[in-house]
Amino acid sequence: MGATGYGGAGVASILLAHPVAHLVHVASDTYVGQPLGEACPWLRGTTDLVCAPQDAEAAAALADIVVLAGSKGKAMEWAPPILEAGKRVLDLSGDFRLKSAHLYEEWYGIPHTAPFLCLEAAYGIPELASESIARARLVANPGCYPTGAILALFPLLQGGLIEPDGLVIDAKSGVSGAGRGSHGLSYHFPELNESVTAYKIGVHQHTPEIEQALSAAAGHEVTVTFVPHLIPVTRGILTTVYARPANSASASECAEALRAYYAGRRFVRVLAHGAMPTTKATCGSNYCDINTFEDARAGRLVVVSAIDNLGRGAATQAVQNLNLMLGLDEGLGIPVTPVFP
Amino acid sequence: MGATGYGGAGVASILLAHPVAHLVHVASDTYVGQPLGEACPWLRGTTDLVCAPQDAEAAAALADIVVLAGSKGKAMEWAPPILEAGKRVLDLSGDFRLKSAHLYEEWYGIPHTAPFLCLEAAYGIPELASESIARARLVANPGCYPTGAILALFPLLQGGLIEPDGLVIDAKSGVSGAGRGSHGLSYHFPELNESVTAYKIGVHQHTPEIEQALSAAAGHEVTVTFVPHLIPVTRGILTTVYARPANSASASECAEALRAYYAGRRFVRVLAHGAMPTTKATCGSNYCDINTFEDARAGRLVVVSAIDNLGRGAATQAVQNLNLMLGLDEGLGIPVTPVFP
Amino acid sequence: MGATGYGGAGVASILLAHPVAHLVHVASDTYVGQPLGEACPWLRGTTDLVCAPQDAEAAAALADIVVLAGSKGKAMEWAPPILEAGKRVLDLSGDFRLKSAHLYEEWYGIPHTAPFLCLEAAYGIPELASESIARARLVANPGCYPTGAILALFPLLQGGLIEPDGLVIDAKSGVSGAGRGSHGLSYHFPELNESVTAYKIGVHQHTPEIEQALSAAAGHEVTVTFVPHLIPVTRGILTTVYARPANSASASECAEALRAYYAGRRFVRVLAHGAMPTTKATCGSNYCDINTFEDARAGRLVVVSAIDNLGRGAATQAVQNLNLMLGLDEGLGIPVTPVFP
Amino acid sequence: MGATGYGGAGVASILLAHPVAHLVHVASDTYVGQPLGEACPWLRGTTDLVCAPQDAEAAAALADIVVLAGSKGKAMEWAPPILEAGKRVLDLSGDFRLKSAHLYEEWYGIPHTAPFLCLEAAYGIPELASESIARARLVANPGCYPTGAILALFPLLQGGLIEPDGLVIDAKSGVSGAGRGSHGLSYHFPELNESVTAYKIGVHQHTPEIEQALSAAAGHEVTVTFVPHLIPVTRGILTTVYARPANSASASECAEALRAYYAGRRFVRVLAHGAMPTTKATCGSNYCDINTFEDARAGRLVVVSAIDNLGRGAATQAVQNLNLMLGLDEGLGIPVTPVFP
Repeated sequence: MGATGYGGAGVASILLAHPVAHLVHVASDTYVGQPLGEACPWLRGTTDLVCAPQDAEAAAALADIVVLAGSKGKAMEWAPPILEAGKRVLDLSGDFRLKSAHLYEEWYGIPHTAPFLCLEAAYGIPELASESIARARLVANPGCYPTGAILALFPLLQGGLIEPDGLVIDAKSGVSGAGRGSHGLSYHFPELNESVTAYKIGVHQHTPEIEQALSAAAGHEVTVTFVPHLIPVTRGILTTVYARPANSASASECAEALRAYYAGRRFVRVLAHGAMPTTKATCGSNYCDINTFEDARAGRLVVVSAIDNLGRGAATQAVQNLNLMLGLDEGLGIPVTPVFP
Repeated sequence: MGATGYGGAGVASILLAHPVAHLVHVASDTYVGQPLGEACPWLRGTTDLVCAPQDAEAAAALADIVVLAGSKGKAMEWAPPILEAGKRVLDLSGDFRLKSAHLYEEWYGIPHTAPFLCLEAAYGIPELASESIARARLVANPGCYPTGAILALFPLLQGGLIEPDGLVIDAKSGVSGAGRGSHGLSYHFPELNESVTAYKIGVHQHTPEIEQALSAAAGHEVTVTFVPHLIPVTRGILTTVYARPANSASASECAEALRAYYAGRRFVRVLAHGAMPTTKATCGSNYCDINTFEDARAGRLVVVSAIDNLGRGAATQAVQNLNLMLGLDEGLGIPVTPVFP
Repeated sequence: MGATGYGGAGVASILLAHPVAHLVHVASDTYVGQPLGEACPWLRGTTDLVCAPQDAEAAAALADIVVLAGSKGKAMEWAPPILEAGKRVLDLSGDFRLKSAHLYEEWYGIPHTAPFLCLEAAYGIPELASESIARARLVANPGCYPTGAILALFPLLQGGLIEPDGLVIDAKSGVSGAGRGSHGLSYHFPELNESVTAYKIGVHQHTPEIEQALSAAAGHEVTVTFVPHLIPVTRGILTTVYARPANSASASECAEALRAYYAGRRFVRVLAHGAMPTTKATCGSNYCDINTFEDARAGRLVVVSAIDNLGRGAATQAVQNLNLMLGLDEGLGIPVTPVFP
Repeated sequence: MGATGYGGAGVASILLAHPVAHLVHVASDTYVGQPLGEACPWLRGTTDLVCAPQDAEAAAALADIVVLAGSKGKAMEWAPPILEAGKRVLDLSGDFRLKSAHLYEEWYGIPHTAPFLCLEAAYGIPELASESIARARLVANPGCYPTGAILALFPLLQGGLIEPDGLVIDAKSGVSGAGRGSHGLSYHFPELNESVTAYKIGVHQHTPEIEQALSAAAGHEVTVTFVPHLIPVTRGILTTVYARPANSASASECAEALRAYYAGRRFVRVLAHGAMPTTKATCGSNYCDINTFEDARAGRLVVVSAIDNLGRGAATQAVQNLNLMLGLDEGLGIPVTPVFP
């Protein structure tokens, strides 16, 4: 569902070449009746699937797992009938990421019609919750910004290496994060090419999602300052976090803790001392590159992470979750190497 | 050999995840002794291989096929000992693309020390010469510009649908075509970002390579006007060819002829009537998208093709050739879908 | 009129700092009632003007010259009442560029309601027609593509240095050429960033405009093949023209003829032998950089020109025309140096 | 001196069209003997000046004010003889920005040979120190990052509206900040295009410059965390500052304080409530756009400023200083409107 947006088409793209999972159905509201290879011309020649209308029951009848990639509010409408039909759901929207439907309503501005499912849904960062994802009927694929921030901070907060208060998260995202449907003046090429700006300062809907995960790590409620920025690149999120070290932890100790936490998980790469994460080194992939730096003079730890917002921030993480849901190796079908340059 | 340039690293990248072929050795002149994952930071975590010095005999001792991706003049030095050792060679440089060593010397400006191998080498456009590639000891992987131009024009010339005289080939290439080592002022980001320019007008070394293939198609010597342009994108070549139709061929007839010629070959996509090739729809892939257009008023046929200069124009075509050399399905290990957006 | 589009705002921008002309009124359909500095946030702090509704009579009552920068069909509606009121008009749209209203209807797809004004309008390439521009009640500011092509070719055709038949004009334009209002999926940043494509092959409405001027130069009807391309940069047009030399003219003789033709005209720069025009070297300016190259093997002359599509291709050329209309030095108020890098 | 780098050429460019000041001499180490219009091809046709060797005494003999735009360490060598010759100096390098030569040596890594001049030099942010600049024999033009940070924070610290401790300054800069000479692999187009990265975390040489000014504003020593980022655009710096409000100041009160401080200074634009600074709206200009935002949940004030790193961050600010040194209107010769889009 929502197969012709950047998130949905990204998942479709990987499934078309997946060694185990099969893409059996695609639905779209904008391109009903058109071949997927016309709605998404880059896919021409790779599939004969035609975009069906977005009908949750029809999808549930055809697939074991239905991937939802609709806009805000769609998943809460689609998920119940699919689950009722005995099928599972992987949702790329924000509808089931927050445990609290009340918080959802506050940040997303619409009522939540399936609050019980918020509680049931597994939050899908595979390195943090493989098992609950594997078992879940409903997996909420994380937001792009939260993915970059949480992977960088969760182990440090859980390990008591940084203070949970006063965290500043400054994120820089490529424009594809706006989605394929949002082509207003703000995303008109000449208006934002060669420009940088901040947006939704203090009010971005990914804020409570970040806080929910970091609170779980810290063991008590965490409030962060989160400021997203729009950068004139297509893909990639660089997240720079400013923290105060706890218990005199050094940058190296933090890096070590990250390395230990992610040992054996191929898709998180904690870089060597001094090496700088860059979004380009993750392009088209599921990698999250992380490193830690010390600003000793100011008594701060700086944690930097890089992801592809449409890869680890959406489609490849979705497939990683899908693999776990299917009991497969988490990396199956996911590109091993980034596209560079 | 030359594993840390864009072409070499691109091939290495695919081989790291290839289901049959194994990457056993990487050599580089710039990064000797460094892990490949440090020389090419985007590959960190994907391999433990360390860059060896560029020694053809050492490589030949380790591999069945040695992929050469050195700069001008290196392959003619490396290929002979490798072949002598009974191993096969796939060369990404221009050293063995021209049958005539004399022409090579004229256009590349250096003497050719292995002219006999020029005659032996199979020119590696898989759709034109699968069988000779499969049998060859030495395959010359085509240049990026020639790939885009030849795939678009070969069937039309061979079929007598366009006049072989007066062809104008106007190509627009991304900057990665300059290679990873060429980081002078010309490729300094602020100097060419947001700029477009032509270069090497009438003297680009890919000209005789294009003419050689088109002459073969036409059955007699063809001279073209070829003008490459530098566009501020990383990847992609769009080739616009201006031709005069022969035998009153219409654009549709030409498209039909292309479709017939490439029937069954998944990596060439002749687009539907009116659809426009764009480089982005081929990014990270081995596709060549082609279409034909009529400028009836001026009595011209316009043929447009799009490729990823580092994909079909280098690394993925190299792996396609490698697959043929190994008797495998030509698409093995090559990404099925482009990276979009 | 149309003051908040890229063309209109560009003219407004220059007039705000013009030493003689005064900007007394701005009108816009989208931003009526808003300060110009809000509708065009980059202009905040530079003017207190507020966008009025687009009313030709109101504008005529306030200004000596009314600059029209509306969409297709607007100028033919606005110009008559303004002229009737005894004021002069400088039009940036295509409405009055073609002498033949019939041709206009064919290429623009709408009826022309003021065909007599097509005949009266002076075509505003200042280096070709200073005097008629100076005298004109109505000046048609040229299209961006025609400007780059005509400045490069007019003197060569007039001088009999190139054959008028078989001209191929391959142009590469930045995205701002699409205008500020056209923010559909085609111009959505992620869709065209890092991509190159051709469009409107053989059917672009600037074709007859180019042919009209070149026919005047050649002394008989000229038909060209014109193919525009979209490049992911904001500003700039690079035009590559493929011609056959006439009377054995060499590239140097052609360059010399251009130099002679444009002697004393500061805004056309015929480059030194071998120097390559780049769009970046003209950014933000009124310069047109031109050079000529020989492809001796193929018997062709290649002429390359570079302009800023919003400078020489729109706003700065408009002010150059305005200066001439006012009897001022043609360069008054126009930036002397490009913005680089 | 240093006339062919981005900073020097930027100043030269403006002076070529300045109504009062005359550019009488240009010197360069890389292009000695070449016309400026060849060394900087975008300037062709605008000047006949030829690059002289970099000889401070020769320059002093010809000019009343010598503008220095050399690399690190050059100005401390050139300034003394020029001042001795009774002429004045405007230096764009970092040599005279820090009052403490000791700090200079620590952050720039080379000994300072003219420490007494550090004390004498006026630090050239015109809105903060018009009078000392006007009188100075030697003006140190500020660094690009410091300009964006100081203009945003100075009035707030001086007014006691934000806490001086714990400031986090996250800056995003275009690549031209690296200069024209630095064309290594790091700035090779394909390597950083479509990528974002942080660099020099906690060790960037602009840190003490920022702290020196903010300390002056606060009345006691201020330590900041400053992290610069490299963004794939040519021009522009967006600075995002995270502060804790002092004395319960709201974002609106802070904006009001900024407005009051910069009243009458045309080149600082404090935006309307909610409006977001973007680098593009300042491109090619001397504007610094600033706004303040509240993250009430986290108890933070976020201050965002945007400049053109080569305009307000280098050349146009230099000319603004030059105007003050000459007793002229500070805006003379400086573009009134940004180049947009």
